[in-house]
Amino acid sequence: MSTKQKRYFLTEDEIPRQWYNIQADMPNKPLPPIHPATKQPLKAEDLYPIFAKELCHQELNQTDSWIDIPEEVLEMYKYYRSTPLVRAYGLEKELGTPAHIYFKNESVSPVGSHKLNSALPQAYYCKKEGVTNVTTETGAGQWGAALSYAAKVFGLEAAVYQVKISYEQKPYRRSIMQTYGAQVTASPSMSTRAGKDVLTKDPTNQGSLGTAISEAVELAMTTPNCKYVLGSVLNHVALHQTIIGLEAEKQMEKAGEYPDIVIGCFGGGSNFGGVSFPFMRHNFFDGKKTRFIAAEPASCPKLTRGVFQYDFGDLSGLTPLLPMYTLGHNFMPANIHAGGLRYHGAGVIVSQLLKDKFMEAVDIKQSETFQSGLLFAKCEGIIPAPESCHAIAAAIREAKECIKTGEEKVILFNLSGHGLIDMTAYDQYLAGSLFDYEVTDEEVAKNVSELEKII
Amino acid sequence: MSTKQKRYFLTEDEIPRQWYNIQADMPNKPLPPIHPATKQPLKAEDLYPIFAKELCHQELNQTDSWIDIPEEVLEMYKYYRSTPLVRAYGLEKELGTPAHIYFKNESVSPVGSHKLNSALPQAYYCKKEGVTNVTTETGAGQWGAALSYAAKVFGLEAAVYQVKISYEQKPYRRSIMQTYGAQVTASPSMSTRAGKDVLTKDPTNQGSLGTAISEAVELAMTTPNCKYVLGSVLNHVALHQTIIGLEAEKQMEKAGEYPDIVIGCFGGGSNFGGVSFPFMRHNFFDGKKTRFIAAEPASCPKLTRGVFQYDFGDLSGLTPLLPMYTLGHNFMPANIHAGGLRYHGAGVIVSQLLKDKFMEAVDIKQSETFQSGLLFAKCEGIIPAPESCHAIAAAIREAKECIKTGEEKVILFNLSGHGLIDMTAYDQYLAGSLFDYEVTDEEVAKNVSELEKII
Repeated sequence: MSTKQKRYFLTEDEIPRQWYNIQADMPNKPLPPIHPATKQPLKAEDLYPIFAKELCHQELNQTDSWIDIPEEVLEMYKYYRSTPLVRAYGLEKELGTPAHIYFKNESVSPVGSHKLNSALPQAYYCKKEGVTNVTTETGAGQWGAALSYAAKVFGLEAAVYQVKISYEQKPYRRSIMQTYGAQVTASPSMSTRAGKDVLTKDPTNQGSLGTAISEAVELAMTTPNCKYVLGSVLNHVALHQTIIGLEAEKQMEKAGEYPDIVIGCFGGGSNFGGVSFPFMRHNFFDGKKTRFIAAEPASCPKLTRGVFQYDFGDLSGLTPLLPMYTLGHNFMPANIHAGGLRYHGAGVIVSQLLKDKFMEAVDIKQSETFQSGLLFAKCEGIIPAPESCHAIAAAIREAKECIKTGEEKVILFNLSGHGLIDMTAYDQYLAGSLFDYEVTDEEVAKNVSELEKII
Repeated sequence: MSTKQKRYFLTEDEIPRQWYNIQADMPNKPLPPIHPATKQPLKAEDLYPIFAKELCHQELNQTDSWIDIPEEVLEMYKYYRSTPLVRAYGLEKELGTPAHIYFKNESVSPVGSHKLNSALPQAYYCKKEGVTNVTTETGAGQWGAALSYAAKVFGLEAAVYQVKISYEQKPYRRSIMQTYGAQVTASPSMSTRAGKDVLTKDPTNQGSLGTAISEAVELAMTTPNCKYVLGSVLNHVALHQTIIGLEAEKQMEKAGEYPDIVIGCFGGGSNFGGVSFPFMRHNFFDGKKTRFIAAEPASCPKLTRGVFQYDFGDLSGLTPLLPMYTLGHNFMPANIHAGGLRYHGAGVIVSQLLKDKFMEAVDIKQSETFQSGLLFAKCEGIIPAPESCHAIAAAIREAKECIKTGEEKVILFNLSGHGLIDMTAYDQYLAGSLFDYEVTDEEVAKNVSELEKII
């Protein structure tokens, strides 16, 4: 057993006071979002009806590399940040790898995941602009829980559309949102046109993130003083999440190391971008050769098997068109336990970075992710969220590679959240009743062909 | 919003390297445990058949104020310790109190509660003595989860008897134990004589901690190389938990404060003792006047309404007789959500300290505890365990008292764990369907009268 330091923290004074806006530094800037009706590039003002103004400007800001974190948000960050950077000695030993494995433990946030990092500033900016109500969608419920708490902190009312199958299968997450005082509705619901459209065609529809987004956007657009907030995909969300990587950078410095590989699981890209972007700037400018790996589910492989194309963010086509790697907005992913990764498209920034080969992507089957998560739990004590299991699986693959090559690579992954509300998934894995899903080429081709008609 | 420091940590070098053994410093030492058959005081050797030898000696050690923490345990502590000491600015503001409220956040341990602090050393000592199997009971499952993980860490097999009603109502905790590789059995079970005795009399019996202890002790006594481990009540458990208070003492020093009041919820006494005993030594020796308050449920009020008497630790009378405040080992507490506080007796050390008026106790109804826990969740973001809600409720009572008196008292309470696996309890509270239970005087008198026949 090693007696070396295991966990690294920052003092409250050391917590970064700015987010890193990678857009400003990218060799090829992301293409603009496009208005679904006019097909014209959108300006920040065009987004005002949906989002808080400050967030609209952050979304399209391709100029400023650094954005100040408001004092009020910093104060709230101090409730749980810095999160620990942990050297995974237990996992290294179990694998017998020469690699040095580190993880950033975002599971110790009060709501159990990294989502709070963006929920707090989004709620703050809404409050500052006189908004009284916020609305959003949630899949597994991590984002919904974070937004519910952030809304409470800044005195806003929150309405959350939760994908129906999660609403029913994960009642604890619903309870958590309600404990923070949020209004939670199973989606599709009869309370919006978008929901009604789905339910009248298919009364037993179990919901999807795409539908839930449509419902929340519709509520925001039809309710005075109500804004829509989103937990991933968008640029401003990834911006807020860079607090993860910026902290990790300072913490790795305390550990006397620098990562050769940075890994995040991938749904819309905010947790991956959060941990990666701050390190990527040193690839851009300082000659570093760090590899960045996004780990996505084999059942929703937009990065590894999707196309780079303009697509809608939601099912109904209410959102702007975004240039993204996508499986098509009609893509209905299999019902894997990693609900947070069941989304058809990738964020705009990540899509451009992947296209330009600044990062890589791997797709991983559900059984491998839980096998990895279980091993991690036994070695490190923390039961990881099904989403985070994807990052762990990718890290283990790389660590095993180091056994073959003998290289002492430094691997950093983001542990985006704990899995304590997802124990039924582990039950199924332990019982051997967990299924693997893989998308057929026909399915991808069909969705992609529909896409090309849009522009 | 304050810009003062909110959380205090220790560096890994600052983590205490010894536990504090209050027994050595108590003005009146605890009375010895007594053999149930011979009625003679027990020596450490008499406990060897049940517990690891080192733990037997710690149990009866009334000489050494400080016990070295083994290196192997210290290394494991570093996986999650120090836990944060947090200034609850949000709660203070909401209450409008001049009091300074601090809490020690044990919920960030990988298993979600303070229980790991004792599970690790207990598993370690067992391993060191050549034990291969450990067995225990668990109510709500916090202790069982901690022991399951600790057993995995030190390469032991764990068998956990979980109170049947929890086994059925809280399947997530069972899953967590199984994820760490433990064997989990609903108690009463047909696998032991103790369990069979209960089930043949009452086939629908929902179990109790007393019965589950009997089953686990029986398994340990009838299985080679198998020892029993306990998560509370006993002196050596409270000893290990003093890491909480010892850390808190150093952290409060960093905050430039010293507590006027220290509060812990009370089941068997280990979390209360853990946070209190290190501060209590300064009452003994340094003229400090800190008040120590144990917060117990009104439905299981052994400290406030029990008698000080020798009693068994379990239902079947397999354990030694201990001098404790008790409601009688036949006492069957109402089915409150704070499963960890549903135990008929108090630890020997705490019982003596209460008798000698070095501490106080309050009993709190279930509805007040959840009202307090909900307020805390909204102010501080963390959803507390139903057990911890008792400490929060007591802290809020004291903070409100300060509003009346205008005193800036420093209140420290132990947040023993999070409530993410207990969301059904919050659901019931929010739905207004939570019941309050209070014990009748007749019930207490009946159990107490049975007690007096024992010796």
